[in-house]
Amino acid sequence: MDITEALRERIAPDQVITDPAVLESYRRDQAAWADSALPAAVVRARSTDDIVATVQVCLEHDAPVVARGAGTGLSGGANAVPGCVVLAMEQLNQVLEIDPLERLAVVQPGVVNDDLRAAVAQQGLWYPPDPASAPWSTIGGNVATNAGGLCCVKYGVTREYVLGLQLVNGAGELVRVGRRTAKGVAGLDLTALMVGSEGTLGIITEITLKLMPARPPERTVAGFFDRLTDAGEAIAGVARSGVIPSVLELVDSYCLKVVDDWKNMGLSADANYILLANTDAPGAAGDAEAKTLIAAFEQAGATWAGQAESQEEADALFAARRLAYPALERLGPVLTEDVCVPKGNVPAMLARVEQIAEENDVVIATIAHAGDGNLHPCMVTSYDDDSEMEQRCKTAFHQIIDAALELGGTVTGEHGVGLLKMPGLATEVGEPVLQMYRAVKAGLDPKGIFNPGKVF
Amino acid sequence: MDITEALRERIAPDQVITDPAVLESYRRDQAAWADSALPAAVVRARSTDDIVATVQVCLEHDAPVVARGAGTGLSGGANAVPGCVVLAMEQLNQVLEIDPLERLAVVQPGVVNDDLRAAVAQQGLWYPPDPASAPWSTIGGNVATNAGGLCCVKYGVTREYVLGLQLVNGAGELVRVGRRTAKGVAGLDLTALMVGSEGTLGIITEITLKLMPARPPERTVAGFFDRLTDAGEAIAGVARSGVIPSVLELVDSYCLKVVDDWKNMGLSADANYILLANTDAPGAAGDAEAKTLIAAFEQAGATWAGQAESQEEADALFAARRLAYPALERLGPVLTEDVCVPKGNVPAMLARVEQIAEENDVVIATIAHAGDGNLHPCMVTSYDDDSEMEQRCKTAFHQIIDAALELGGTVTGEHGVGLLKMPGLATEVGEPVLQMYRAVKAGLDPKGIFNPGKVF
Repeated sequence: MDITEALRERIAPDQVITDPAVLESYRRDQAAWADSALPAAVVRARSTDDIVATVQVCLEHDAPVVARGAGTGLSGGANAVPGCVVLAMEQLNQVLEIDPLERLAVVQPGVVNDDLRAAVAQQGLWYPPDPASAPWSTIGGNVATNAGGLCCVKYGVTREYVLGLQLVNGAGELVRVGRRTAKGVAGLDLTALMVGSEGTLGIITEITLKLMPARPPERTVAGFFDRLTDAGEAIAGVARSGVIPSVLELVDSYCLKVVDDWKNMGLSADANYILLANTDAPGAAGDAEAKTLIAAFEQAGATWAGQAESQEEADALFAARRLAYPALERLGPVLTEDVCVPKGNVPAMLARVEQIAEENDVVIATIAHAGDGNLHPCMVTSYDDDSEMEQRCKTAFHQIIDAALELGGTVTGEHGVGLLKMPGLATEVGEPVLQMYRAVKAGLDPKGIFNPGKVF
Repeated sequence: MDITEALRERIAPDQVITDPAVLESYRRDQAAWADSALPAAVVRARSTDDIVATVQVCLEHDAPVVARGAGTGLSGGANAVPGCVVLAMEQLNQVLEIDPLERLAVVQPGVVNDDLRAAVAQQGLWYPPDPASAPWSTIGGNVATNAGGLCCVKYGVTREYVLGLQLVNGAGELVRVGRRTAKGVAGLDLTALMVGSEGTLGIITEITLKLMPARPPERTVAGFFDRLTDAGEAIAGVARSGVIPSVLELVDSYCLKVVDDWKNMGLSADANYILLANTDAPGAAGDAEAKTLIAAFEQAGATWAGQAESQEEADALFAARRLAYPALERLGPVLTEDVCVPKGNVPAMLARVEQIAEENDVVIATIAHAGDGNLHPCMVTSYDDDSEMEQRCKTAFHQIIDAALELGGTVTGEHGVGLLKMPGLATEVGEPVLQMYRAVKAGLDPKGIFNPGKVF
């Protein structure tokens, strides 16, 4: 019996897809340049039992299993590998429980981030992690990649909000790890180990998340800068001020220019670099924090700095940030980097990126979670078939990684290793730590079926 | 060559202790009832090289190695096992680096928690985790047990502050895991896996910690309650209010009484249960939060609720909390429980504890991190040799664990599993998860030298 037949014996046949056209749509995530293969089958799971059955069949057939949420990943983590079964989680999209007293939610892995945020908001609660993909990406994918976002500078990344997991392990058993209580240190922290493991250690079937109370409205301040060094000094000044902004983003001159070319906003005439910061401190404390942020921008040499006086004005200021990526995509496919460096090295890293762009004759526009030191240099390629340009972009991609490591940084701040960052990870952590990863993997996935060939 | 000779070949002989009287002092931590053995030797490490050498010698001799900070643990995690080498970290007490811009510190494992807090405070920074043992316990021990404390209700436990580690792994190699950047998701999160693993996966040699900016002074409010159910309702009311207090502690009637018997403070005449809460919100927001907390106490039926008008008054209110443990120790050795239940189940759990005390004819006084649902029922035994009472206390200890699990809780909120909670952990997580722990352990510690026989 082949694997498809075996799957159809345990899962409703219409959920086991083998139509090549449909398989093609599950081939890869948003990392266009990473390798991918047509899966042997796609299982559209509708229940935890479907996931258990899929893993057990894959164990019996020594077949790889690749879990997939919305496919918005940027590193190839959800790309299909030869002979694999893709476990598609979109239909497992139920928020199973929201408990306002314990401030937790229990969700299926296919719940879309924004849908969860909307559901908990109705009960006066807030789920902080806010990746740019929040309107589409799923909590399961967010957990698998330990997704970040804008508010992480103050509120941390997905890991900080995962209390417990239900998962199918390498023995095909359905188990629970973690807890529902506010604190708990019983046993090894397999929950944290699973977060960010990109599907290599097991398949997550249910997630228990910590929530926060709804927070006060944010105030927005902005600073315009002529020089990169001044913007860098402003970031350092914010860190020294003792204020932790709830957002601190940097948009570079290239982003401003492409947004202007598209929307005629006149931003690039005003500034070469824009810093955008929010504070969500309550009442007068929020006013004071906004003033502190403006003062830090001005002391660093901002040509203009001020506070948005309305939500509309704040939205207009953030437009450059929000529109940068779609504006770049108008020009060609975008390859997004995700390095993270110590905050103090953001200006040095940005200078290196500009130099790498020039040396390789490629277009690199940078958006940065500046308060975290997490930079997204975006390489813009061409919709025309231009393999020479693609090669130059790949060279630049690897040079950016090398530069980040030289500056004390990491190859991925929030997108994950997937396929694209595997060489960078090996350089970053070194062979003895890779051996430790492999030992953990061999222990938890002895047959090696979970997303093989990814991460390490 | 025996192991002591081998150690003395690589480590200064005066650091390798075999004097039985000194060995005896390294036999166990504060868990008097847990098994312990005289170590074969104690190594007082003065450098990272000493730790590497010790692990390598232990690997060569198949000898267990037990790392030990200040020995303030309450679960027997640092208790010596037969034939082991105890690696004493007290002398590795240097704060190696404090970086105000990146808001991180790099420390040796033997740095005392309060010493670190004092050092970073001089630079306007704050290290939140504040276990009651902070004046004595070391950061290495705090990391090994994932220690909590009072402010964790708002600021989380030790894990949230560990960015990276240097450690000696099961191959005797010195490696770095984690990062120095604000964000980073490269590879498996071995840092989080090491935190709370109680020395079973490797020996930590250096710790990189995330710091916070110094915070505004706290305001203290208190509520007095006649009835346990009212105090429980007040805890729920605080959760519903959307305020996250920076401290929310409960002291029960037995604690109030023993403090009164000792210090004549008259507390037990005023209340059967006291709730103590702090807020560290800035300025007017702090005033508003204090008012909200008082209102929550009053609505739940507090016989009195109010805000301390000075630091002296706040200190007086907290005296009952601070003095409870030493007051209990005047009566006899104290066995401290550490269960954690969902916040909503705190009253039910406290009622169960009172019932268990009565049924077993033992004295149980409870201090609780009420805002976390983390309870410390303290069993008071006798300085006289009273094996029958000891047996009753042990019965009560296990009944409390069973009750916590029945109420959806965990066997340990912040003290760790060590030896005392091993049966409870097995019940809590079940055999398939224990197998996953063993698989991880076998992968990372193939010779099984790291703190064998502990946790799982």
